[in-house]
Amino acid sequence: MNLNKNKYDVVAIGSGPGGFTAAVRAVQLGAKKVAIVEKSLIGGTCLNCGCLPTKFLWQALKLRQKIQKSYKYGFKVDFKPVVFSDIFLKKDKNIANLRKGMKMILSSYNVDVIEGVASFKDKNNLMVSDDKGDNVLEIFANSIIVATGTSSSVVKGFAFDGNKIINSTDILNLKKIPKNMLVIGGGAIGIEMATIFSGFGCRITLVENKGCLLPNEDREISEEIKKNLIKQGVNVLVSCSDMLNNIDEYEKILIVTGRMPNNDLNFRKIGIKTNTKGFVKTNEFCQTSVSNIYAVGDIAGKSLLAYTAQSEGAIAAENTVKMNSASINDFVIPQVVFSMPQSSSVKVSNFLEYRDVIYGKFPFTASGRAFIENEREGFVKCAVDRSNKKPLAFWIVGAHSDELINTASQIIKSDIYHMSRESVFHPSFSESLFNAYEDAFDKCVELAKKKKNSIRTRF
Amino acid sequence: MNLNKNKYDVVAIGSGPGGFTAAVRAVQLGAKKVAIVEKSLIGGTCLNCGCLPTKFLWQALKLRQKIQKSYKYGFKVDFKPVVFSDIFLKKDKNIANLRKGMKMILSSYNVDVIEGVASFKDKNNLMVSDDKGDNVLEIFANSIIVATGTSSSVVKGFAFDGNKIINSTDILNLKKIPKNMLVIGGGAIGIEMATIFSGFGCRITLVENKGCLLPNEDREISEEIKKNLIKQGVNVLVSCSDMLNNIDEYEKILIVTGRMPNNDLNFRKIGIKTNTKGFVKTNEFCQTSVSNIYAVGDIAGKSLLAYTAQSEGAIAAENTVKMNSASINDFVIPQVVFSMPQSSSVKVSNFLEYRDVIYGKFPFTASGRAFIENEREGFVKCAVDRSNKKPLAFWIVGAHSDELINTASQIIKSDIYHMSRESVFHPSFSESLFNAYEDAFDKCVELAKKKKNSIRTRF
Repeated sequence: MNLNKNKYDVVAIGSGPGGFTAAVRAVQLGAKKVAIVEKSLIGGTCLNCGCLPTKFLWQALKLRQKIQKSYKYGFKVDFKPVVFSDIFLKKDKNIANLRKGMKMILSSYNVDVIEGVASFKDKNNLMVSDDKGDNVLEIFANSIIVATGTSSSVVKGFAFDGNKIINSTDILNLKKIPKNMLVIGGGAIGIEMATIFSGFGCRITLVENKGCLLPNEDREISEEIKKNLIKQGVNVLVSCSDMLNNIDEYEKILIVTGRMPNNDLNFRKIGIKTNTKGFVKTNEFCQTSVSNIYAVGDIAGKSLLAYTAQSEGAIAAENTVKMNSASINDFVIPQVVFSMPQSSSVKVSNFLEYRDVIYGKFPFTASGRAFIENEREGFVKCAVDRSNKKPLAFWIVGAHSDELINTASQIIKSDIYHMSRESVFHPSFSESLFNAYEDAFDKCVELAKKKKNSIRTRF
Repeated sequence: MNLNKNKYDVVAIGSGPGGFTAAVRAVQLGAKKVAIVEKSLIGGTCLNCGCLPTKFLWQALKLRQKIQKSYKYGFKVDFKPVVFSDIFLKKDKNIANLRKGMKMILSSYNVDVIEGVASFKDKNNLMVSDDKGDNVLEIFANSIIVATGTSSSVVKGFAFDGNKIINSTDILNLKKIPKNMLVIGGGAIGIEMATIFSGFGCRITLVENKGCLLPNEDREISEEIKKNLIKQGVNVLVSCSDMLNNIDEYEKILIVTGRMPNNDLNFRKIGIKTNTKGFVKTNEFCQTSVSNIYAVGDIAGKSLLAYTAQSEGAIAAENTVKMNSASINDFVIPQVVFSMPQSSSVKVSNFLEYRDVIYGKFPFTASGRAFIENEREGFVKCAVDRSNKKPLAFWIVGAHSDELINTASQIIKSDIYHMSRESVFHPSFSESLFNAYEDAFDKCVELAKKKKNSIRTRF
């Protein structure tokens, strides 16, 4: 083994959105030798068992629903029974193609991909072991970017067995739709899995013990999601203590209660500090307590999202080239849950500090575009600072809200103090952002006048 | 006839987006008696024979294409032959329902709807005549907002007969798909009609004599639209002088070369000035040369779009309540054409004044979301001010670009000088805006490195 060959300017551990972005960006900024160590598949959780495969399945479900409602356009369609394994095959093919694309990009930038499990020997040296646990390689790096991500949290009394008690990765490899399933965890993943599998015919019981779905989300949104899940046939249980009595009756039990850090890399030995939950502590430069080591994405525990991981990856890469040249500044981060229809939200980071906030709401039933696209469920809700009319937050339930929230996000992020009608195309769903904003001032022209004596609930 | 009953604070002439918005907003701002005079159907061109019915048909076509490609999700579907008249019936039902919604809003605000054709008697009095041309009513108004819109322009040698030689209104009332059709005019309407009717089986020849489709649009966009139309089987002719020789062979000839102002209201008599094309001259307050009379939307000829009409309507309404209190400020206006896939653009109003502009481009084939949604055609192109990194313009061809352009529009409008990854959800189509932006600096991590010696065409 020639150790000289294994000397790098920058090494990223993990090839998910954070590590991938960090490695490519480091090359773009002039790093000569860059590598990624990956213990499993290129692309990490997001590509292989997270964002993308779930969105593929959601998309399939959505398309099926659109086909079933195509008579609204005068179409006559005979829909043959869905063979679930066919959908899964297509999913795997799509994901494999996307993985190929990522490999091609890494190769074009001459990023070495080292297969194996990395752990720290010291602050500049990593040991890489193979799947038997044998150390097979030692690599040196001036800067190291930890992007090892997270794994499914376990729940006391439920050991994952990959068969009956499964996690969010296992479920994406099922060969057929279970006849019924208990989903424990009413966060984004639980809601998405309940939506998808219920949509394809599985009887779902969804359990969340914090009193409501998405406990950190606006209550009106969370109630709307719950209402839609129930309409889709999901048995939603919140605040129940005895709901786990009859677990024998379920063919599968999916545990999606949270994520825990992949931190088994000898952090303590070399002085990388972690918080009480085991996530790596980082400063605004994405730097750990060891100055040449950065941590980005899930493992840094700031927000377990692919796109924040990408931002952090880019920031860390920049700092490996010129220390403290880039930092995390007041991130405005949209959140999306693929319920049916989708739901999303974005707000100024200090939203709770605002004291004089007014709210507007616009239902998609009143949107011309939603009407003709036959996507009339849901609404946009908008929070506005009364004193200066600045939009502070948007919440959306409805078709395309995963795209619309990005418009909202740019408004929230910017100096836009007054939304202008002419800057939004008609007829579009996006108009509803504007209409909800105007409704906060009782100035929406696309809603009937509210009755004078009706008490207007400010949500 | 009791003339006292016909005295108003504000009267809008026309109930399209401009007049409708103006009337409702006037009430919202405190006007006590408000009316709209409408000579035809509530909602004007946009609702009845413009934006909305065409989008319904486009949506039907889009859905049919999605169904035809649903095997990409493992689905098996038997699609029965399309009965075109069924689609048209659904269209008419949708539009009728939307019209009902608009009437309900007007009624909730106590806006009187007066059916008939208005013309000026003097600067405060309107004569309203019935469809026989008899004057049936005189109404007085302190302020009058002209929102009479436009009609299809005629082309020399082609008189509309509602049968063979038709306009964009006639075509929406066809009972069946013609076997072939000549479309004269390669602007937005011509492209949309060619797309829709070709999609439903009509052999289309699309003719534009200005050298390219959408002559005022970025050339790369216009070429992409042309390419897609040709792929869809449309015979696209540009710069041809002899193309009109064989007009006998066409079952229908659709003339969509432009719009002319509906200005037959005695403007000259009362001193309302028009430009050489007959559009009403207005100042930044949407005020005509007669101080209590405003003009908004198409008739003012600024931009023939529903959403600018709405903005102008709101501005005019505000000025009727308090003169010169609202004005047209530096409009940023997205443009969308429903080709297949859609195309759109938005830019800073003084784009041509920028001297040091760099460009980035991101194809949807490289977007994970576009990949799994099986919508991989098209691209985002972005123009950036090199010196301060401010995004100056976006052009998009691709699925959802009618919504995405609204995100771009807010960025262009705002003080955003650097697009941030974390403010855009993953996986979404909107990410491609960010990727195109980063590509302008050769910093997109989702594209392979460009070969060093390849000459990069800066479009």
